[in-house]
Amino acid sequence: MIVAAEAKDGEAIQEIAARAGVFDAVEVATVTELWEEYLQKGAQGSGYHFIVYREGETTLGFACFGERALTEGTYDLYWIAVSPEERRSGIGQALMRAAEEAMRQMGGRLVVVETSGTPRYEGTRRFYASVGYQAEATLRDFYRPGDDLVIFTKRLK
Amino acid sequence: MIVAAEAKDGEAIQEIAARAGVFDAVEVATVTELWEEYLQKGAQGSGYHFIVYREGETTLGFACFGERALTEGTYDLYWIAVSPEERRSGIGQALMRAAEEAMRQMGGRLVVVETSGTPRYEGTRRFYASVGYQAEATLRDFYRPGDDLVIFTKRLK
Repeated sequence: MIVAAEAKDGEAIQEIAARAGVFDAVEVATVTELWEEYLQKGAQGSGYHFIVYREGETTLGFACFGERALTEGTYDLYWIAVSPEERRSGIGQALMRAAEEAMRQMGGRLVVVETSGTPRYEGTRRFYASVGYQAEATLRDFYRPGDDLVIFTKRLK
Repeated sequence: MIVAAEAKDGEAIQEIAARAGVFDAVEVATVTELWEEYLQKGAQGSGYHFIVYREGETTLGFACFGERALTEGTYDLYWIAVSPEERRSGIGQALMRAAEEAMRQMGGRLVVVETSGTPRYEGTRRFYASVGYQAEATLRDFYRPGDDLVIFTKRLK
């Protein structure tokens, strides 16, 4: 079941982010920051939308997205992550579909996802490609020398 | 003279942004938001660095920049604007040089500037090119349909 995240999902969200294996401590801290703003101000007030995939009472994955300032209908997908044990089970695809549907309903027409060009993120890039995203732009050495920013986009129908 | 902006520059900064002719009301409001954070928390606390070009007591231009989260040494140049009457006087170039020098001193190695691909911003894009920036990436229809994001970058020596 995919629903808007509630306070009780907080611990699992942070654990899933920490255990994803590709995010370092600073990146995980960023999830916590966005999550706290979402809890305090809600999705409208914070601009951050969190959704979770739950099986019974267990939270197995989450996604976080929000509209980019100064655009009309362009959304950033900030995070999408699934519990390591549940990979390849279709939860990531289901979360992506739900996120896109939510963005579309809010007037979203373009989704932007930023990731790294290093080998460590190859699985991540492959996942985006598999759900219809295109690597539209690259900024060389963006994160650090040798670590490019790759910007994936998808036009919502 | 180019110096770190002080409270007394606030009015001029917002007026220059409003009169620049390329920014709409929402974009000008963004300057105000960043400026207020800078005044309250300072450059270190807010992450926004404002510098101004002053002639005597008159503020004729400003620039605003800050390090991008999750990167090592990548800086966003958020704004650079000069009073319409003072265009083509070299103030923009001088502000750009001072901003780059400040970023370099803080460990900056890559500067990123985002702008629009529409004809209205042609002068802006020409200015960036004239001071050594390259249009490294484009995201089609980013701001709105027909209005691309063009990302300029410059490697600091």
